[in-house]
Amino acid sequence: MIRKTRLFTPGPTPLLPAAQFAMAAADIHHRTPEFRALYQRVLGQLKEFVGTNNDVIILSSSGTGAMEASVSNLTSPGDRVLVLTAGKFGERWSALAKAFGCEVDIVSAPYGQTFTLEAVKAALKLETRVVFMQANETSTGVRHDVEGVAKLLKQQKSEALLVVDAITGLGTSEFDMDKWGVDVLIGGSQKAVMIPPGLSYLAVSQHAWDRMESTYNPRYYFDLRKERKNAKSGESAYTPAVALIAALGAALDWVAAQADGNLEKGREKLVANAELIAEMTRAALTVLGFKLFNAVSPGAAATAVYAPEGVDSGIVVKELKSRFAAIITNGQGEMKGQIFRIAHLGFFDYLDTIALIGALEQVVVKSLPQLGVKFGDGLIAAQKVFAERTAK
Amino acid sequence: MIRKTRLFTPGPTPLLPAAQFAMAAADIHHRTPEFRALYQRVLGQLKEFVGTNNDVIILSSSGTGAMEASVSNLTSPGDRVLVLTAGKFGERWSALAKAFGCEVDIVSAPYGQTFTLEAVKAALKLETRVVFMQANETSTGVRHDVEGVAKLLKQQKSEALLVVDAITGLGTSEFDMDKWGVDVLIGGSQKAVMIPPGLSYLAVSQHAWDRMESTYNPRYYFDLRKERKNAKSGESAYTPAVALIAALGAALDWVAAQADGNLEKGREKLVANAELIAEMTRAALTVLGFKLFNAVSPGAAATAVYAPEGVDSGIVVKELKSRFAAIITNGQGEMKGQIFRIAHLGFFDYLDTIALIGALEQVVVKSLPQLGVKFGDGLIAAQKVFAERTAK
Repeated sequence: MIRKTRLFTPGPTPLLPAAQFAMAAADIHHRTPEFRALYQRVLGQLKEFVGTNNDVIILSSSGTGAMEASVSNLTSPGDRVLVLTAGKFGERWSALAKAFGCEVDIVSAPYGQTFTLEAVKAALKLETRVVFMQANETSTGVRHDVEGVAKLLKQQKSEALLVVDAITGLGTSEFDMDKWGVDVLIGGSQKAVMIPPGLSYLAVSQHAWDRMESTYNPRYYFDLRKERKNAKSGESAYTPAVALIAALGAALDWVAAQADGNLEKGREKLVANAELIAEMTRAALTVLGFKLFNAVSPGAAATAVYAPEGVDSGIVVKELKSRFAAIITNGQGEMKGQIFRIAHLGFFDYLDTIALIGALEQVVVKSLPQLGVKFGDGLIAAQKVFAERTAK
Repeated sequence: MIRKTRLFTPGPTPLLPAAQFAMAAADIHHRTPEFRALYQRVLGQLKEFVGTNNDVIILSSSGTGAMEASVSNLTSPGDRVLVLTAGKFGERWSALAKAFGCEVDIVSAPYGQTFTLEAVKAALKLETRVVFMQANETSTGVRHDVEGVAKLLKQQKSEALLVVDAITGLGTSEFDMDKWGVDVLIGGSQKAVMIPPGLSYLAVSQHAWDRMESTYNPRYYFDLRKERKNAKSGESAYTPAVALIAALGAALDWVAAQADGNLEKGREKLVANAELIAEMTRAALTVLGFKLFNAVSPGAAATAVYAPEGVDSGIVVKELKSRFAAIITNGQGEMKGQIFRIAHLGFFDYLDTIALIGALEQVVVKSLPQLGVKFGDGLIAAQKVFAERTAK
């Protein structure tokens, strides 16, 4: 049978056709009025998409580049920082902070869980300069409480900056970084904005810009103040990934078009879309006999479930790929072989969702008979969720 | 919720990405060695796809252009011809033959049915010059018996040419035009070959080429002998639809790649794919309470079903479009409002199929409660068909 390759992965996510066309057409030089107009337009769109009055910076790098920029621009060697971690990307904050000579305090929760605000409060010190966290831990599918941590820092009158990796959080959760007092919010291109990898972006508060005046960790390619200065004249400091910027502009046009040209409302629709798909998927997976790995605080970016006792989760990943060309992901880090993950962020609709659940049912009925599942079990659960949520 | 527009229509069918890219890149002039190499390659591929040693002609026209070419090149005013019809496209043969001054005999069956070979035999006259028929009547989803009619003409030692509109038959049924003695087999670009409309093609037997020596109906743009002569040197008589020809080449490369480079075997896989999707769809629709319209001789190109008593079939078409952006088609001609049709030919896979059935279930449960359907009824039927057919 024909098998169309389809990504159900939490980045890269399926590409938006309008963005693909813009990318293919992006035959322009980056030191021209044409590019400057494009760049300023996209920077403006990103502010609306993030929902902030802060300046937004685009980097030609993966999301990790923007994470590094946050560390290298906002800390000096010997600075005490606090990392909140419950997964592979939390651990990346620790590794980055250590690489740049910081003294790293850690609040950690097991994979699949989230940390309590009490633990964060207990770990926060007077001299903590920055708190690093994820909005959504991609490796586990767990949503962390960004608003709660921000409130805590205010309550404690902490001088610490709050830096949030929202790479899979943007477009799957609502944020009000200006009101909450988040200092840096980081996004990536291959996530909810539906274009290929290669761009990251950061919204940066005045508090964070001020901090950069005194920090002295080495930075050159990721020098945020240089990028901010260049962006004022519509250029990037170094050669930008032009085609991806054109694609991002087209993708954000599309998001706006989902709500009569209102990009903020379009983003809200994107979040609601991911929430509904996540709910359909959770309902189906539960009935199919899988235990939710991210049950405590499930994010809408991706759902993670345990493989059955004694089964390598790679089997489900492999069978979905070989039989249906549907690409989901295994666990990362210490969870490899134990869980699998299905993404909901970005360009997915009802038909994508019900189709993947159908394919998953085929895999379970044939290859995991011990789960005692019969055809229809998962599909019916998902059908009912969709019908209930769209009834009004 | 996000809604991706998806075609489930019997032409245009969903586009193959590789063909879209080839089309976008087709920036070549048609009187150059580059185009001549492309054109001869595609003509060769089409022979393999059709499965014939006959010359194949490409026309820049819709399928109706190739139907007209068959009439204008193979008949003279006053010729007696026999049209076998059971739907809108059968009627088109009559209209074309009359427009070119033929004396038209007709064997007709009601929409949704097919004609008997006895009726064809009874209508065939000594002086019948051409028999026109469809391999698959797109307006009803019914497959006609091309091999049976070809055999009958041989048994009767008829001098009549057999001209078959296989526009939705190619890639959904197997043909052996050389062995059976079919004289003209017609295809279209927006069907099983997965590219946009704009090209038609005809495989033409020696018997048919010989006939053209004496026929004298007016023809100029559709002069098949002129096209054949030009094709020998790798060109078309008139400006060809270059981008579509590049797309067709890429699509046929893809079909070949489905079977290790063997285009004939790739076509067989395409037919098997359509057959399995058709079977899943028929099983689901039946359980969902719809009566098959093409039950007597169902083709794999599309499935047609009756709307329930007293319901306009346009409701299902409209709801699938407005709620899910899934495009199916209403009945054509006298069947409008009475049936709807779902296509299987071309670039569809398991996930497309199960997804559409899920959406259809949502429409039925919400908008056609009189059918007494509950979630899972159609999906489970389709799941079982897929599991059984792929069990080996």
